[in-house]
Amino acid sequence: MSRFGLSAIALAMCTGVAQADQFVQPLISVSRNINIESWEADGGKLTPGCPIHWTIQKHRLHGGKQEGVDLIVLNNGKLEIIVIPTRGMGILSVTCGDVRLGWDSPVKQVVNPAFINLQSRGGLGWLEGFNEWLCRCGLEYNGHPGTDEFINNVGDKATMELTLHGRIENIPASEVELAVDQQPPYRIHVRGRVDERMFYGPKLELRTDLSTEPGSSSFRVEDVVTNHGPSEQEFELLYHTNYGPPLLEEGSTFLAPVTRVTPFNANAAKGLTSYPTYEAPRLGFIEQVYCLYPLTDENGRSVTMLRNRAKNRAVAIKWSPSELPYLTLWKNTAAEKDGYVTGIEPGTNFPYNRRIERGFGRVPKLAAGQSRHVTLDFSILVTPAEVSQAAAEVDAIQGNRKPTIDPSALAVE
Amino acid sequence: MSRFGLSAIALAMCTGVAQADQFVQPLISVSRNINIESWEADGGKLTPGCPIHWTIQKHRLHGGKQEGVDLIVLNNGKLEIIVIPTRGMGILSVTCGDVRLGWDSPVKQVVNPAFINLQSRGGLGWLEGFNEWLCRCGLEYNGHPGTDEFINNVGDKATMELTLHGRIENIPASEVELAVDQQPPYRIHVRGRVDERMFYGPKLELRTDLSTEPGSSSFRVEDVVTNHGPSEQEFELLYHTNYGPPLLEEGSTFLAPVTRVTPFNANAAKGLTSYPTYEAPRLGFIEQVYCLYPLTDENGRSVTMLRNRAKNRAVAIKWSPSELPYLTLWKNTAAEKDGYVTGIEPGTNFPYNRRIERGFGRVPKLAAGQSRHVTLDFSILVTPAEVSQAAAEVDAIQGNRKPTIDPSALAVE
Amino acid sequence: MSRFGLSAIALAMCTGVAQADQFVQPLISVSRNINIESWEADGGKLTPGCPIHWTIQKHRLHGGKQEGVDLIVLNNGKLEIIVIPTRGMGILSVTCGDVRLGWDSPVKQVVNPAFINLQSRGGLGWLEGFNEWLCRCGLEYNGHPGTDEFINNVGDKATMELTLHGRIENIPASEVELAVDQQPPYRIHVRGRVDERMFYGPKLELRTDLSTEPGSSSFRVEDVVTNHGPSEQEFELLYHTNYGPPLLEEGSTFLAPVTRVTPFNANAAKGLTSYPTYEAPRLGFIEQVYCLYPLTDENGRSVTMLRNRAKNRAVAIKWSPSELPYLTLWKNTAAEKDGYVTGIEPGTNFPYNRRIERGFGRVPKLAAGQSRHVTLDFSILVTPAEVSQAAAEVDAIQGNRKPTIDPSALAVE
Repeated sequence: MSRFGLSAIALAMCTGVAQADQFVQPLISVSRNINIESWEADGGKLTPGCPIHWTIQKHRLHGGKQEGVDLIVLNNGKLEIIVIPTRGMGILSVTCGDVRLGWDSPVKQVVNPAFINLQSRGGLGWLEGFNEWLCRCGLEYNGHPGTDEFINNVGDKATMELTLHGRIENIPASEVELAVDQQPPYRIHVRGRVDERMFYGPKLELRTDLSTEPGSSSFRVEDVVTNHGPSEQEFELLYHTNYGPPLLEEGSTFLAPVTRVTPFNANAAKGLTSYPTYEAPRLGFIEQVYCLYPLTDENGRSVTMLRNRAKNRAVAIKWSPSELPYLTLWKNTAAEKDGYVTGIEPGTNFPYNRRIERGFGRVPKLAAGQSRHVTLDFSILVTPAEVSQAAAEVDAIQGNRKPTIDPSALAVE
Repeated sequence: MSRFGLSAIALAMCTGVAQADQFVQPLISVSRNINIESWEADGGKLTPGCPIHWTIQKHRLHGGKQEGVDLIVLNNGKLEIIVIPTRGMGILSVTCGDVRLGWDSPVKQVVNPAFINLQSRGGLGWLEGFNEWLCRCGLEYNGHPGTDEFINNVGDKATMELTLHGRIENIPASEVELAVDQQPPYRIHVRGRVDERMFYGPKLELRTDLSTEPGSSSFRVEDVVTNHGPSEQEFELLYHTNYGPPLLEEGSTFLAPVTRVTPFNANAAKGLTSYPTYEAPRLGFIEQVYCLYPLTDENGRSVTMLRNRAKNRAVAIKWSPSELPYLTLWKNTAAEKDGYVTGIEPGTNFPYNRRIERGFGRVPKLAAGQSRHVTLDFSILVTPAEVSQAAAEVDAIQGNRKPTIDPSALAVE
Repeated sequence: MSRFGLSAIALAMCTGVAQADQFVQPLISVSRNINIESWEADGGKLTPGCPIHWTIQKHRLHGGKQEGVDLIVLNNGKLEIIVIPTRGMGILSVTCGDVRLGWDSPVKQVVNPAFINLQSRGGLGWLEGFNEWLCRCGLEYNGHPGTDEFINNVGDKATMELTLHGRIENIPASEVELAVDQQPPYRIHVRGRVDERMFYGPKLELRTDLSTEPGSSSFRVEDVVTNHGPSEQEFELLYHTNYGPPLLEEGSTFLAPVTRVTPFNANAAKGLTSYPTYEAPRLGFIEQVYCLYPLTDENGRSVTMLRNRAKNRAVAIKWSPSELPYLTLWKNTAAEKDGYVTGIEPGTNFPYNRRIERGFGRVPKLAAGQSRHVTLDFSILVTPAEVSQAAAEVDAIQGNRKPTIDPSALAVE
């Protein structure tokens, strides 16, 4: 790109230096001016010594609001993981045999952000593209729509209407690459960078590294959010992971070691006593959201689970509350056609409007150049033994500590 | 797509099962992940037994705000019909010899919805792409901008700013196909599906089948709107068909059998006595809109016409008021460069803001899974005999029934 | 395109008739339905008699929010000029040896307008794509966001929220061509047309001709704005040219012959006495804007400069205040990562909200069919002699005329 006079920009945009002993394949790159439309590779070619057959494909979607959306499909031999570079490196679904991390949204297409207006419907435009298993909410703000203050271009306090869940999920990734370790266990990485930048506004960057080992039923999401501005910068980040059947069903259970449970609003308060269990789909069910304060093990890690009724299928999420201190549980056991779904959402905050979160001291800041690291480990559990072992970990962290249950919401939007 | 783990989505998206004895060619398909950039066929190949030479082409437009817009050009041997899949299966124009259904909008490009912000200009952003002969207005709402209520994501009543004429014309079609009957009269169909879906919002689907016979000067638009949500759903649908020269000129006449005529507002009331006739282009003309209640024949069909001054060219529209009970006449005989145009608009309602229409009981609902069928037959009439015969049909329906003429508008926006 | 029934549109859209003795190459054309993805040529081929080697390339950008953006890179043998057809024919940068017209915006990508929502952030969405050296602001309005009146579709006065700096920079060009004179001095032209049109709104057209001679360190921007509507039409146009290092540095000087200087607001008033000189980057610097009334030479031309501290590098801009009577100086010597930049902005007005500008009589109108011509000559000066000669021209125009310095702003937003 230097011939375009853009070398300064190009240098600023590289995803990072490849590690030794890694095969690295750029797939999308602003700095190299590429977006490979169709590409595939497999373990036979890239990791000949690896006994597990794995594959990766990049495709472009066509038709309707999908036109121009890129997908990356990684199959590690056990898991099929679909990443959406065009939607901020969100993850559409992860499947492992008969278990799927994901849900059946009424939104059936993988929507190109070019067709999304986040401000529509009173700031709820984000919902026109919402169907991923894992959506990041953020980076400047990540909660409910509504008025908040900001500093405008003449240095004055002004107000703006925040839009639901922020912008990061509707920003196409600038740099995306496959990286594969050349030594056992041949870990496979899908890395991306998403830039949330503007003049007179945030200069925030998300770097994400989704990785898994061939043949594993676990995978890791390692994210780094960096403030590239020269001043302290507020930010918010929440991992909106969403589950429908088969993990969500009547009798499914949510498990988490917590010190406190607070209903998000009056409607959630009505379901407080049975908050960890799920009903069958019910027409007219109004979402119930719970604010949870996770407990940790001796290493500072917490674990939360969604477990099916038969207790033979589950997902376990492990992360550090020092990175993401708040856990939001979203129960939306509405009719199937409205989206029968529950969200398990570790975050820097609860998803109230940022104005409210700031009042509670839950809006973190990054100093100039500072980064926040987040590591989330997901495991799909497919036997009663695996499921019960993970549940035992939850129990072990909870121990005898009885959570405080707040009878009513602490904030009103 | 099953290898993408999207098979469930794919299955939900197929346009429908092909009928026996039809040649079917998918052109755009979310479920098959295709959008054929350029394609053409003709009757010699697809209907060798048909004596009329007909052609169909799919093209992609380039440059300006047209970038990426798809067009389908169907020439049945007599009519050239241009369909815009990217703009909700709207119809740009229909030409038959020296007659054109269409108009000369100041908007000269066929605008990709990616460049449209429906909320701009106080909710009038729709006008930045408005130049089709047939625009559908809807599906959630189809009238003037302004505040209305809706139920938000926490189950509360909230307000949103509706945008002019709704979203359907700015949603790219998900599935588009050509279907050709293999038996006489070798009817040619251009079918499409447009999805207006969101989470916590409508799950409405438009299926449209535009069809004509080789050599005919008539064509049919058969639409089905379906509520795929699990609850009763309001909807609005209006066919905004727009005409400039040659059918619109000084001395042109609008004909329709009606039981009642109401001016839309005070400005329309001023032109009430001459509402069915047209002036020459006049700078500064302010639109005049009339709300009409159509009469029907013994089969429940109504007919309306736009006839040129010499009474030797006209368009006739036949439809069932049981499907679209209200007829709006939009007179905008402004300067040519502002858009000299009249709209003949059968609809489920008049184009007031939905809030007003609801108050009059004119916002229909669809039960879960329910569909509304609409069939509109258009004929281009090119001889005095054809024109006078159609006018006689209008007269026959009107008979001795004198319409009520309301002196003033019944609603104020 | 006549086979598409679009011939009337096509005819209306041609960029213009080529002059004799010019090589003309269309690159993007709505009327011809082309957007050539990649193209290049050079002087050896197009101007074999020209002793200077020059090149031109058209590229498409990929990745992130750049997806689908077109760039034209013209190298005249001395200058490299990068034009962005997709962003209203804005100019990303001009480089000449170690001098660059341009700046280091925190926005690193050349953003496709499909990803811009001008209404976001209280009407500041324009700032999400702001990184060009030359941005045109306009055409319907070009100043600060805020409420203004307009006439809506029913002829009533209504209000709309104007968005920062208008729409023209976020409208993809409809027609772009290269034109090269076949006779000495073999002037090279990059021409484009950008349409700002809507129904019930402006029908404004920008035609721009960027031209330079092989081997020259100067270039010209000749623009014509035309009102294609049938009525008088307000318009606003401002050339937001932006400079970072090397021309901007501590001790750089802004030079212009002026009759009057008025601070834009109270913050600018604080810096009034040192308004023509620049500080080093400073975190937290709040923009200071000055409204200047330029003086002219005997030919009605004015000149303004930005000169580096060593007085051996500068840019000089010459134009006619009869075309652009007002000159805005934007000083934003903020931290480098926030965008260390100054804007020199000749315009039809100052960049207050149009409502305020109208009150001061600074919103011009174009009669039906009328055009406003603007010619701006830019020179990059790279020796002390060139720089001092240009400064002498500024001094000569100023002469003994001492400018009025208003102590405070004349308007409050």
